[in-house]
Amino acid sequence: MSETTHRGRPRGLSDRVRQEVHAAVRRLLVDEGYAAMRLEDVAAAAGVHKSTLYRQWATKAQLVRDVLVTGELEHYPRPDEGSLAADVEALVSGLTRLFRDPTTVAFVRTRATADDPELRGSLHELARQDTAFMRLPFERAIARGELPPDTDVGMLVELLFSPLLARLAVTGLPVDDEFSRRLASTFLVLAAPPAATWAPPGAADGDALSRSGRGPRPRARR
Amino acid sequence: MSETTHRGRPRGLSDRVRQEVHAAVRRLLVDEGYAAMRLEDVAAAAGVHKSTLYRQWATKAQLVRDVLVTGELEHYPRPDEGSLAADVEALVSGLTRLFRDPTTVAFVRTRATADDPELRGSLHELARQDTAFMRLPFERAIARGELPPDTDVGMLVELLFSPLLARLAVTGLPVDDEFSRRLASTFLVLAAPPAATWAPPGAADGDALSRSGRGPRPRARR
Repeated sequence: MSETTHRGRPRGLSDRVRQEVHAAVRRLLVDEGYAAMRLEDVAAAAGVHKSTLYRQWATKAQLVRDVLVTGELEHYPRPDEGSLAADVEALVSGLTRLFRDPTTVAFVRTRATADDPELRGSLHELARQDTAFMRLPFERAIARGELPPDTDVGMLVELLFSPLLARLAVTGLPVDDEFSRRLASTFLVLAAPPAATWAPPGAADGDALSRSGRGPRPRARR
Repeated sequence: MSETTHRGRPRGLSDRVRQEVHAAVRRLLVDEGYAAMRLEDVAAAAGVHKSTLYRQWATKAQLVRDVLVTGELEHYPRPDEGSLAADVEALVSGLTRLFRDPTTVAFVRTRATADDPELRGSLHELARQDTAFMRLPFERAIARGELPPDTDVGMLVELLFSPLLARLAVTGLPVDDEFSRRLASTFLVLAAPPAATWAPPGAADGDALSRSGRGPRPRARR
């Protein structure tokens, strides 16, 4: 894949014009949605000629794909707190903030509702690429011995952010602080049940786990 | 909420007619999608007069909501295999089958794309109701001591099925056997990392966990 022609800045447009076009697309996706947005409106909102747009992006799908690919990178949470627990809490709270932003909501809805085959196809590829930043906390946790080395990091990442996508795009349930807190703590309980706070029926010594060979698992929750 | 007027069978339609109307809606949602579907088409496909439909459902949104609420109950997987691990595997594999069915795909897409406020509103309520069957395996696991008593069952359920919704409605990634296998095994690794198969760096005895007070956790995976 040729990064310079298909992602980031197309040749021939100045940074300023490109940024204005992208900003116009983001506003129009928020205000009108993908289906209703016309390239004429984008050109007018960005103060450029429509032919300028068409020289860079042959279709609305290509333009919107470029905006979605480059649009949110700067807002991705990138915690590095020294432990899996702290990283997951920071990641979830950063993602919750990101997913409450009207632009992100519009991006997710665009991906959910676009029936343009070209856009859908390129967004499938985007789905594989745009979660790389979420892998890092889990890869560091593996390096620290907090997770098994054969952990399926890709599926862990998908488990963590899918509830955000599903709430925004399908169920309509709120993405709020309570959700963020429950998502982080349930994910962490799953990642390692706090043995000190519960013992299964019949267990003689529920605290034994804390003395086992489980290794360091810093916790700062509840 | 009045169950008999808002869910299940509206008064005044025979079971046979109601089933034919529901079947017609399911077919049209698969073939055309919610936006394009007209009540006239439903009436024609079901072989009833349009006025018959309007007497029972004032709007397309009400009719589609009724179909979505009652449509899939019979296909929900309801495993009871005696252990959390076996139940999660059966649940995920049953859900994967369900989510590959064209009708389910159409239902999820309808929920994702419907911009009708009336339909969206009632689907939010549906989202709270229609996951009750998924709670049972986790509630039994708590009763058996496989999960802590204060487990957030609602969030566990949401974590388990959100990747299915997100793949179908947003990312477009495939819902196939490989996905099903990875989802179940990652969820189970999260629920209790298999200590016998890995030891964190510096742990003298990685097998200590299996002798700890962790209680019975039947495993039959990998």
